[in-house]
Amino acid sequence: MEVGSGSGDKAGFFTQGRWWLKALPAKFNANMVDMVRKIKKLGQDDPRRVIHSLKVGLALTLVSIFYYYQPLYSNFGVTAMWAIMTVVVVFEFSVGATLGKGLNRGMATLLAGGLGVGAHYLANLSGHIGEPILLGFFVFLQATISTFLRFFPKIKSRYDYGMLIFILTFSLISVSGYRNDEIFELAHKRLSTISIGGSICVIISTVVCPVWAGEDLHNLIALNIEKLGDFLEDVRKLTKKVNFTGFGDEYFKRAGGEECKDDNEFLEGYKSVLNSNNSEESLANFAAWEPGHGRFPFRHPWKLYLKVGIMARECAYRIESLNGCLNADIQAPSEFGSIIQEACTNMSIESGKALKELALAIKIMVQPSSADSHIENAKSAAKKLKSLLKSGTWEDVDLLKVIPGVTVASILIDVVTCTEKIAESIHELASKAQFKSAEPTLSAEKLHSGQMQCLKSSQILNCPHVVINVSESSLPSPPSESSSAPKASMQRMEV
Amino acid sequence: MEVGSGSGDKAGFFTQGRWWLKALPAKFNANMVDMVRKIKKLGQDDPRRVIHSLKVGLALTLVSIFYYYQPLYSNFGVTAMWAIMTVVVVFEFSVGATLGKGLNRGMATLLAGGLGVGAHYLANLSGHIGEPILLGFFVFLQATISTFLRFFPKIKSRYDYGMLIFILTFSLISVSGYRNDEIFELAHKRLSTISIGGSICVIISTVVCPVWAGEDLHNLIALNIEKLGDFLEDVRKLTKKVNFTGFGDEYFKRAGGEECKDDNEFLEGYKSVLNSNNSEESLANFAAWEPGHGRFPFRHPWKLYLKVGIMARECAYRIESLNGCLNADIQAPSEFGSIIQEACTNMSIESGKALKELALAIKIMVQPSSADSHIENAKSAAKKLKSLLKSGTWEDVDLLKVIPGVTVASILIDVVTCTEKIAESIHELASKAQFKSAEPTLSAEKLHSGQMQCLKSSQILNCPHVVINVSESSLPSPPSESSSAPKASMQRMEV
Repeated sequence: MEVGSGSGDKAGFFTQGRWWLKALPAKFNANMVDMVRKIKKLGQDDPRRVIHSLKVGLALTLVSIFYYYQPLYSNFGVTAMWAIMTVVVVFEFSVGATLGKGLNRGMATLLAGGLGVGAHYLANLSGHIGEPILLGFFVFLQATISTFLRFFPKIKSRYDYGMLIFILTFSLISVSGYRNDEIFELAHKRLSTISIGGSICVIISTVVCPVWAGEDLHNLIALNIEKLGDFLEDVRKLTKKVNFTGFGDEYFKRAGGEECKDDNEFLEGYKSVLNSNNSEESLANFAAWEPGHGRFPFRHPWKLYLKVGIMARECAYRIESLNGCLNADIQAPSEFGSIIQEACTNMSIESGKALKELALAIKIMVQPSSADSHIENAKSAAKKLKSLLKSGTWEDVDLLKVIPGVTVASILIDVVTCTEKIAESIHELASKAQFKSAEPTLSAEKLHSGQMQCLKSSQILNCPHVVINVSESSLPSPPSESSSAPKASMQRMEV
Repeated sequence: MEVGSGSGDKAGFFTQGRWWLKALPAKFNANMVDMVRKIKKLGQDDPRRVIHSLKVGLALTLVSIFYYYQPLYSNFGVTAMWAIMTVVVVFEFSVGATLGKGLNRGMATLLAGGLGVGAHYLANLSGHIGEPILLGFFVFLQATISTFLRFFPKIKSRYDYGMLIFILTFSLISVSGYRNDEIFELAHKRLSTISIGGSICVIISTVVCPVWAGEDLHNLIALNIEKLGDFLEDVRKLTKKVNFTGFGDEYFKRAGGEECKDDNEFLEGYKSVLNSNNSEESLANFAAWEPGHGRFPFRHPWKLYLKVGIMARECAYRIESLNGCLNADIQAPSEFGSIIQEACTNMSIESGKALKELALAIKIMVQPSSADSHIENAKSAAKKLKSLLKSGTWEDVDLLKVIPGVTVASILIDVVTCTEKIAESIHELASKAQFKSAEPTLSAEKLHSGQMQCLKSSQILNCPHVVINVSESSLPSPPSESSSAPKASMQRMEV
């Protein structure tokens, strides 16, 4: 028995082992297929990533010509490797980030090189023994001060990399000087190889399929506001679908159904707005380095986009609460629900429409006046709701059942206020950035067909080219506004 | 007249100029004073910044000994500058970030160095003309692939710097090889100088006043939850102050008064929770690189802190809405307000207390069982409120006036749910991280006095040492839990 069971175990072990070995290639294949799928998805989500990778490869190959091409090599020698380093470190995804890093690196090298040479000469005067001590002191002092300065928020956001390179170059130049008498040549070579590497980065980044951080910021803000509008408008659609039975109610029906999964994903698009803070800030920082491009002149008011972003986030917090209420387990009774329904639906529709108009206005860069009427409608719906609640005498009200409806109504009133604030900040942006005034003859349908096109294209990707096409094809630019064109190009020439 | 006015203008111009010149030193002084004040504040806000700056200075000075000290220099030559570069680039604020960058740099250099040497030999085989072409192709290929891989979120969060150094080293080694026949020596020197620089960074960063990212994450999460509790408890205090006249009401009184500015700042502490997403994630990434330290063993479940953080943010969104409601311009009538007052106040107090107990439990690393009773109380208050609203027949209710109270009540019910979720996630953290079980003999007053101490100290700074003192002095560690100590140290030895 024992032996039998033992051999059985053994056989089981071998069988398992064989199974495992047999399964190995299949497992490996599955892993590979999974990885290929992931890589494909990453590229499809934003094809600019593939292009960026090819651009980096191109820049590095170009800069390695320094090593291959004899006359260039004999001029720069081993210091040519600094050009390679510069390309690897400076080449970033967007033009703004690349320019910012390149300028930071260049200016910091120039400044630190000068100071390093000065420190070297000063140390030279103090004799053979004093020199290393004095140099060590200088290095310690500048590293400490520069590192501390990097904690300043303003310096951190724009000049952090410059400070790093400052510390590096100063230390390299002043310390190398102790051995190398040709310190000027070293400083000069470092500066020129870095400029060559930096220039290659900037040129390739700007010329070959440029990715503009400013354009990305512009699209991100518009997309975020559109997502908020989507949520509010979708509430209306669903309300329609279930024949106005109350807010809480229809969300349950939705949650049970099959088709809802896509809907839910679409509906919860606003969640990404909650955390877009950091990406907005870094994009605005990069955009500040960029020259004029496309529809954006140099010194476009990028900071105002951040203000719009903050207002959009305030609204997103309200919508998050709204979403929580709508998914809660207390349902609004149909009697009370149907009374406040219309006003709530109106507030929601009109705020949603206003937000979408605002998003469209940003996208095609016109004055957002078309949103104002929707905001007025939303405000009057809110007023109507208030008077409705005031006028009706409510006998025998079960307050518990009223809670969800009242809460939704109250948050919606808040949302209307937020929408108004968003509109104000976009009006400020539009006037500072000199958006075109909307064509008065432009019919609402036309605008909406433009909007539909715009929305569809924006769902594919926040690809700048698509948006430009929309603005140029579906909205003929009014002749009265042609005067703004030369101004933009003049501003661009300042760069 | 004309002349007179002209000379008047001239005189005015000179007077203005003189004024301006006179004001210049004062202006300069004011600017300097302002800057000194800012620098002082930056250092006082977190004295670890000053220490970090000094540490960087020390590391750089140490590494420049390579240049000064003859035997070392003759060994490494100019490649010693890579050690300086490593120190400048790798030395980060926290131990985890420094270790992560150092390991990334070391491993990437090793790997890329090996591959670079391989590519060099392969290219060598293809003859004089084929060599630069093949090398260029290799550089292009690896730069393109590596750059694309950097877009993977997982790689980006932990190995981004390693990928950068991989591209750099591969290009340097394979391309330098074209000129330099001592390619092995180059690879070897680069690796050893980088290890020397990296080791100096890691040693100084770990030995001299170390800043642990893990400890920072731990304190940040506890502080965030405490801030949420502060808001909810403060609501109660204010309610008491104005003798229970309703939520909306007292906020108005507060807004009018003088003393409120400090209060408001204190009250709006929760706002920082809304945007702490990114800092939490980066701290968790850094913490994963850290060895065991203080109370935290190696492989402490840092990811669970992120889960707690997400739950805390969900709660913060609700509190943001609550804050909006409380500051809105519709007041709750005292009649209806006074009815729901007690239940609302209880929900708020109990949730606040529960959150503070949870924060304390994280801080002193004990099982958060003391919070459970408060959560139960909050839940029963919510139930009571519901039954209150159900039982009472409400004749002639002006629903408009009821709105603020009902909304606040509804959001508070939501907050209670969020608090429960936070407690669940902290329970999970406590069991995975093997927090000590709370001492049963510990009286509530003792715990609360500990809490007060803890709160005060945490307001000074999230300084780890203060918190440790509290946990060791006010809470004697139970003897039954002493078995966890050797385990922790064993885990630490694995590092």
